[in-house]
Amino acid sequence: MKHKGILVVVSGFSGAGKGTLMKRMIQAYDNYALSVSMTTRLPREGEEDGRDYFFVSKEAFEEKIGQDGLVEYACYCDNYYGTPREYVEEQLAAGKDVILEIEIQGALKVKEKFPTALLLFVMPPSAEELRRRLVGRGTETEEVIRKRLERAVEEARGIESYDYIVINDDLGKCAGELHSIVVAAHHAPFRNEGFIGNIRQELDVLVKGEK
Amino acid sequence: MKHKGILVVVSGFSGAGKGTLMKRMIQAYDNYALSVSMTTRLPREGEEDGRDYFFVSKEAFEEKIGQDGLVEYACYCDNYYGTPREYVEEQLAAGKDVILEIEIQGALKVKEKFPTALLLFVMPPSAEELRRRLVGRGTETEEVIRKRLERAVEEARGIESYDYIVINDDLGKCAGELHSIVVAAHHAPFRNEGFIGNIRQELDVLVKGEK
Repeated sequence: MKHKGILVVVSGFSGAGKGTLMKRMIQAYDNYALSVSMTTRLPREGEEDGRDYFFVSKEAFEEKIGQDGLVEYACYCDNYYGTPREYVEEQLAAGKDVILEIEIQGALKVKEKFPTALLLFVMPPSAEELRRRLVGRGTETEEVIRKRLERAVEEARGIESYDYIVINDDLGKCAGELHSIVVAAHHAPFRNEGFIGNIRQELDVLVKGEK
Repeated sequence: MKHKGILVVVSGFSGAGKGTLMKRMIQAYDNYALSVSMTTRLPREGEEDGRDYFFVSKEAFEEKIGQDGLVEYACYCDNYYGTPREYVEEQLAAGKDVILEIEIQGALKVKEKFPTALLLFVMPPSAEELRRRLVGRGTETEEVIRKRLERAVEEARGIESYDYIVINDDLGKCAGELHSIVVAAHHAPFRNEGFIGNIRQELDVLVKGEK
């Protein structure tokens, strides 16, 4: 199957500002579609089905797994989380660049199924700034913050598996850089085989005509 | 030697508009330096030493070759053409992205010496448009135009050796895309090893401090 859009997988430490960055991407540029995950956990206050997640039953989720209907999935704290394949493929076919926010294990699984997916890692400008942002939320206990930092240490080990890193210091600048990375990817020769083939044929015809 | 800048090699059919595009890049963005070639051919009217080429004697050129002072060189029509290494390395070390306009054989030689160089191929929107531009110059005979088209057929065979292609339809748009490609390249993990190493260390220290 030939995809016109690019699957853009975004990972990064908790507190790196991925959520805000994704919103900015959607607002600032019109070529993106955000993938919505499917989960069996219950909606939290303010969460909306189809916007934040597709909330489904365990049975419905396992049926999806059986149909190979998920790009990737995982189980955390007794709940399933996964990426429905259909929406992703529809949007890619329609020429949209699909952004998928996901942690590293999922990102690597996506890369297996979509080898041309772009893997991007969002980083805070410094570890101290990461800590400040986690504390600044004011909603987390010291224990949670410590766990997030420990998790960041873990995740930092996988950065080299990513195609690109971006540093989220200034939101607009970071969104611009992310966009540049996607624009660049569209210019790889393998994504322009049709155009290259056409111009080769046209050149051949022209040269023969000149003789 | 660690380079902070990126070596950007630009090739493309004669008539694809590389020269104008390079000028636009230099005007529109401040991170670029244009590499100036060295040649043993005589200056044409209006050409300036150090701007269009470094004009040197055959002996001086061959001395450069002997000192491994050229990134690449070739001999056309009894004249040498080459890229002085010193200027390129100075600019890269100073953090400039150095643009090198060169044909495919030279581009591949540069890639051997600088494996992290970015190879970009500039294409016209169509073969017919390429012909129109070659004819439109009004300075070339039909014979020259035919030879250029034949050469384009040759060069088109090598496009897959390039990292990216850009289509020069709208000058500003094309320059923007070229710039995006260079911006993206700066975000590859291997170009940010220092930053990644630092943040890993900082995270380790923070986590230990929290315990």
